[in-house]
Amino acid sequence: MTGYELNRRFERSLLNVWPAGHSQIYPELARLSEAELIRQSGSGARGKKIYEITPAGLEEVRAWLRTEPDHASRNPAFLRIFFLWLMEPDEAIGFLENEALVHEAKLLEFQEIASQRQRQDDEAWAFGLALEWGIRYEQGILEWNGWARKQIADRAAASRIRRGRRTGRHCPDERV
Amino acid sequence: MTGYELNRRFERSLLNVWPAGHSQIYPELARLSEAELIRQSGSGARGKKIYEITPAGLEEVRAWLRTEPDHASRNPAFLRIFFLWLMEPDEAIGFLENEALVHEAKLLEFQEIASQRQRQDDEAWAFGLALEWGIRYEQGILEWNGWARKQIADRAAASRIRRGRRTGRHCPDERV
Repeated sequence: MTGYELNRRFERSLLNVWPAGHSQIYPELARLSEAELIRQSGSGARGKKIYEITPAGLEEVRAWLRTEPDHASRNPAFLRIFFLWLMEPDEAIGFLENEALVHEAKLLEFQEIASQRQRQDDEAWAFGLALEWGIRYEQGILEWNGWARKQIADRAAASRIRRGRRTGRHCPDERV
Repeated sequence: MTGYELNRRFERSLLNVWPAGHSQIYPELARLSEAELIRQSGSGARGKKIYEITPAGLEEVRAWLRTEPDHASRNPAFLRIFFLWLMEPDEAIGFLENEALVHEAKLLEFQEIASQRQRQDDEAWAFGLALEWGIRYEQGILEWNGWARKQIADRAAASRIRRGRRTGRHCPDERV
């Protein structure tokens, strides 16, 4: 696989759980090659280097898979939900509407990838497991998003009614 | 609020989407105080500093809320799913069983927090929106986890049957 092909595949899979930039891939390939965890197995068009994993590289991946995973997960967009109370209701609903657009696009992307899948090897099969969670995740957060927008709208309406009642009570006093 | 109280509240809320260590909170409070985004509003027992947000600090938070959120999200534990095909089926199922324990504990924690909620202010209300997603997320990933384990077990069983059939076909040849 060339660096370009790796980048393309990364974008459609790991990027969703491990954000990394395009610029990182070539220095990383050089580093892995230096450490003999991958090796150049041939050359493609226009002198492109084709890499493959070495037995030592595969052992390294397997050793990593046996370590305890880190369950800390950083989600900068969702962090904002905790601060929604600092926004006006319309602003908070607008924020959630934008979030819904992002998640709808992601869901469509995942569903499209799922419908186009052709490879049947072990790697593609594991990717299918991850993709299924991606689809369920996007569907779940969209349902929650709709529910949350309704909560905000209902709360704002209840607050307007309370303010209206208070104004109503005050009116006679003011007229006295 | 003191640094200690802030840490306690952080652990039960933001830590789930924004991993940060205990050691970061006091230097961060000093930095925010220096920038006049928070100020010391009093002293507690044993000389503890009590902080409150300043109007400038609140404006800073509101300005941040109006910026475009970063949708990249890093999930080191889920990253492993893409590499499950490098594990033996039993190992992969064992990994998912451990993951399920982690998510079951998290779900229980979230449900307990939801059942104990007493504060009714705006901040607690927004926290309730986030908490609802936390509960749905943990329930969703547990359902997916059970589904994925079944996929792995079914695939391993199908593979054993295929291997058995092949062995069956080879037996007569060997006997010839």
